[in-house]
Amino acid sequence: MRLSQFFLSTSKEAPAEAELVSHKLMLRAGMIRRLGSGLYSWMPLGLRVLRKVEAIVREEMNKSGAVELFMPAVQPAELWQESGRWAVFGPQMLKIKDRHERDFCFGPTHEEVITDIARKEIRSYRQLPVNFYQIQTKFRDEIRPRFGVMRAREFLMKDAYSFHSNFEDLQREYRNMYETYTRIFTRLGLTFRAVAADTGAIGGSGSHEFHVLADSGEDALAYCPNSDYAANVELAEALPPSSQRPAPTTAMEKTHTPGVHSIEEVCAFLKTAPSRTVKTLIVEGSEGPVALLLRGDHQLNEVKAAKLEMLPDEVRFAPDAMVREVTGAMPGSVGPVGLNIPVLADRALMNLADFACGANDTGFHYTGVNFGRDLPEPIFVDIRNVVTGDPSPDGQGDLELCRGIEVGHVFQLRTKYAEALSASFLDENGKSQTMEMGCYGIGVSRVVASAIEQNHDDRGIVWPMSMAPFSLVITPIGYHKSELVKQAADGLYRELSDAGVDVLLDDRDERPGVMFADAELIGIPHRVTIGDRGLKEGMVEYLPRRESQAQNVPLSEISTFLLDSLKTA
Amino acid sequence: MRLSQFFLSTSKEAPAEAELVSHKLMLRAGMIRRLGSGLYSWMPLGLRVLRKVEAIVREEMNKSGAVELFMPAVQPAELWQESGRWAVFGPQMLKIKDRHERDFCFGPTHEEVITDIARKEIRSYRQLPVNFYQIQTKFRDEIRPRFGVMRAREFLMKDAYSFHSNFEDLQREYRNMYETYTRIFTRLGLTFRAVAADTGAIGGSGSHEFHVLADSGEDALAYCPNSDYAANVELAEALPPSSQRPAPTTAMEKTHTPGVHSIEEVCAFLKTAPSRTVKTLIVEGSEGPVALLLRGDHQLNEVKAAKLEMLPDEVRFAPDAMVREVTGAMPGSVGPVGLNIPVLADRALMNLADFACGANDTGFHYTGVNFGRDLPEPIFVDIRNVVTGDPSPDGQGDLELCRGIEVGHVFQLRTKYAEALSASFLDENGKSQTMEMGCYGIGVSRVVASAIEQNHDDRGIVWPMSMAPFSLVITPIGYHKSELVKQAADGLYRELSDAGVDVLLDDRDERPGVMFADAELIGIPHRVTIGDRGLKEGMVEYLPRRESQAQNVPLSEISTFLLDSLKTA
Repeated sequence: MRLSQFFLSTSKEAPAEAELVSHKLMLRAGMIRRLGSGLYSWMPLGLRVLRKVEAIVREEMNKSGAVELFMPAVQPAELWQESGRWAVFGPQMLKIKDRHERDFCFGPTHEEVITDIARKEIRSYRQLPVNFYQIQTKFRDEIRPRFGVMRAREFLMKDAYSFHSNFEDLQREYRNMYETYTRIFTRLGLTFRAVAADTGAIGGSGSHEFHVLADSGEDALAYCPNSDYAANVELAEALPPSSQRPAPTTAMEKTHTPGVHSIEEVCAFLKTAPSRTVKTLIVEGSEGPVALLLRGDHQLNEVKAAKLEMLPDEVRFAPDAMVREVTGAMPGSVGPVGLNIPVLADRALMNLADFACGANDTGFHYTGVNFGRDLPEPIFVDIRNVVTGDPSPDGQGDLELCRGIEVGHVFQLRTKYAEALSASFLDENGKSQTMEMGCYGIGVSRVVASAIEQNHDDRGIVWPMSMAPFSLVITPIGYHKSELVKQAADGLYRELSDAGVDVLLDDRDERPGVMFADAELIGIPHRVTIGDRGLKEGMVEYLPRRESQAQNVPLSEISTFLLDSLKTA
Repeated sequence: MRLSQFFLSTSKEAPAEAELVSHKLMLRAGMIRRLGSGLYSWMPLGLRVLRKVEAIVREEMNKSGAVELFMPAVQPAELWQESGRWAVFGPQMLKIKDRHERDFCFGPTHEEVITDIARKEIRSYRQLPVNFYQIQTKFRDEIRPRFGVMRAREFLMKDAYSFHSNFEDLQREYRNMYETYTRIFTRLGLTFRAVAADTGAIGGSGSHEFHVLADSGEDALAYCPNSDYAANVELAEALPPSSQRPAPTTAMEKTHTPGVHSIEEVCAFLKTAPSRTVKTLIVEGSEGPVALLLRGDHQLNEVKAAKLEMLPDEVRFAPDAMVREVTGAMPGSVGPVGLNIPVLADRALMNLADFACGANDTGFHYTGVNFGRDLPEPIFVDIRNVVTGDPSPDGQGDLELCRGIEVGHVFQLRTKYAEALSASFLDENGKSQTMEMGCYGIGVSRVVASAIEQNHDDRGIVWPMSMAPFSLVITPIGYHKSELVKQAADGLYRELSDAGVDVLLDDRDERPGVMFADAELIGIPHRVTIGDRGLKEGMVEYLPRRESQAQNVPLSEISTFLLDSLKTA
């Protein structure tokens, strides 16, 4: 592509409302333009990247045996009423009335439509299994769309739905999709992790999320570097300590701690470590207040806590008045000793002796406290976030933490939709059975943004080769002034184009600084600079995007050199 | 593709509501499935065809220099209010309110959005010209969707919008798009015509429609077989006769014609030809009734008539009472002699002498009537439909008629949207100018249906090679019984697949009759049948879809033979 025949529109500044790096860089590079809240046009440069992602997703889905189809974006309400989701999906669903006042929605997802197709088309076990997928524009009416295409309302999604005659076959296809997703994100050149997305009945394998790792990611992830184990921190199990609790060595003492509230203050005052303190949180239980105990250096995991029988589905902290009524102290001086409400302690406390905690007397703390001696043994439960260095639940090493952006999700739906919509088939014995079903999504447009979050520097985007809008850019110095430069640039451009390389020739009449800055901002992996000075020595300059030092290559060898570099890139 | 790994769902019957051949065959072949009124899912077989059309459109648009982008489907009302179309577009536009009760629509077209992009991105004449296109799902809320994807509500469209610094450059790009469309429909293997779509200011070149020719087409077209001339019959000019009017040879006589009303009855009774009679239509003019005269064998063209100054924008025929008041006779006996209202005569009457017509006396006709002698010379105008044999307006021969399905439209919008949305640029002299604009659409999903209308027989679809879901099908007889057949079929399948041929192997355990019927119904251009009987002689059977007689080809030569056939196909 000659840049003069393309449409590039870069800028030095991003609008103030762009917070995320990817949002800023996509705007600055002219990849996207905002049409309205959560609505973005993909400009030519951005679309090239989107299409490359789409193509890799399509190729790998086809290789996996899935079959592509294309369902309407606009869906009749009747199907959603049948599944029961019309009422419960909430305002995220963009509801529409047509000219005849009939109800429709702009499909946020397609379980209902595909199940309707399956129940009409599939009669016999001999037509199973089948995995249908599409790559399609979806709409979810986010209350606060932000971060550009990362959390847009209209977005491009690959959604797949598989149908099976039995659960074993669903599990087989689930593994197939898991492996396909692994191949897709590997080919895209992204650093990613598949994490267990719920603890499900089947050893946590009922659902996995695929995350692109990036510091800006919304999700905290825990993984074991020595194994496949990875989970959203919300769900990652914190194992009980492997060591026994030591015997108490000191007596319990009450200390006046005026103005000391936080764990940091307590530790500084008492000259102890956070890991040797216990913090006490009073929450509203299903039948009255409950105390939750955590090690001072640990954080409550509200998702885990909400799953406890004693607590409601959402953790609610007790208001100050209730805390005082229950403990006799203000928050900051609360502790477990002498409480007459249920006490649930995180398992990390199982091997803690001689610890410090609030004394339930405002301005006082205890030290040298021991379970079983100074207060009853509590009920031990897993209610904390794992931290770096915790043992991996699979016993393969210690956990590490990172942040991730969810770009894919595989899910064993089982018979939820097939039952609601009566999608059945006749088995080998002529008996009617409900289909088992899986669904598998990839946020295609979000993949683009997440790739930038993971791959950028202060000069702009650094595309992985497979997603780059162009593989290589030729920046001639004086293209419109020097016949020699023009000839060399045009010749190399033709040669590489003919060899199938996605090459961009910057044939604009711009200063070198502008061309270099644009090439770096839009993240082209390889750059060749051709100028009169170099040509005099028969040389051109080669600079990979990830490096800062250009190297001279003889003009006569540059084409072979580049074709080799691109092959190994 | 092995059929066992594909999803094919054919049927012998089409639902009763399907009227058009293409609709019936697309349902029977399992190309599409209905989700709701005017909403269709593209099943795997149909999607393969749709994608092939899309790919050809994309390739040719890219070659033409247009640049692809991708705009949102959901568009904010504000832009449409700015262009003035929010109110006037009517109920075809699917309006939507989001969760914040803000107004949006599901884009029926994208002039507003692209003009918004242009006004924000384009500052200087140096950024012009540019032609942006996208291939995208559109929604038009047709009041009565029908004919399957031919007139669906949700459909796939290629829409392009070009921007220019002056009108000459718009005209250049218009010709470029005209030629690009010609290449696209030629590559698709369709018989088509570009027709002038309006008579515009610029010699009728302001807008052209591209029609796929098919007997079932909604539009009547006139074209000259010796030249490029083609026009919608609604607009095709009927030239005045080239010959002079002969002198009168008989006297005007009044004849009693009881019960004679239609032209056929008049001719039978008076023993004359329709081309020697004049019919008189009384219509409501802007300032009282007007008589329109046509040759008995010609039809009124209401579009042309509505453009006459004396008539309103829509032709309204006078009610019987008014006809009687104006002429003194009942319809059927009305004629031009003695009328005291304006008389407009079609130009075909310019050279007619001694004609027959109603006598304005119920039950009577005149014969031997002559303009200038028996009644004043009327005002001659072009108000009829052209007929086969009329001279082509370009003087290159005689017109022929056919029917067409509109699949493309190119249009010089000029400054309509650029003015409304203030899309301006700075010209060479630093002066602000309004952009000139063109738009260019192709109904991608409609192309698929129209191709079937043009290419089918009583056994099913007959795909042009470029659009076929598969180029070739291998139908092995006894694939699951004969190791020999399986080996030969698998071998050929692998060989052709490796050579890049889109081959389908029917590896189902079905009777030959079922396989053959399916292959013909879904329209695969080439078929190879492999059976034990033929293999004994070293032979396989080759049958192109358009023929009925198979030919034997040695197994050892079949692969070379097919690769040759596919190359020339």
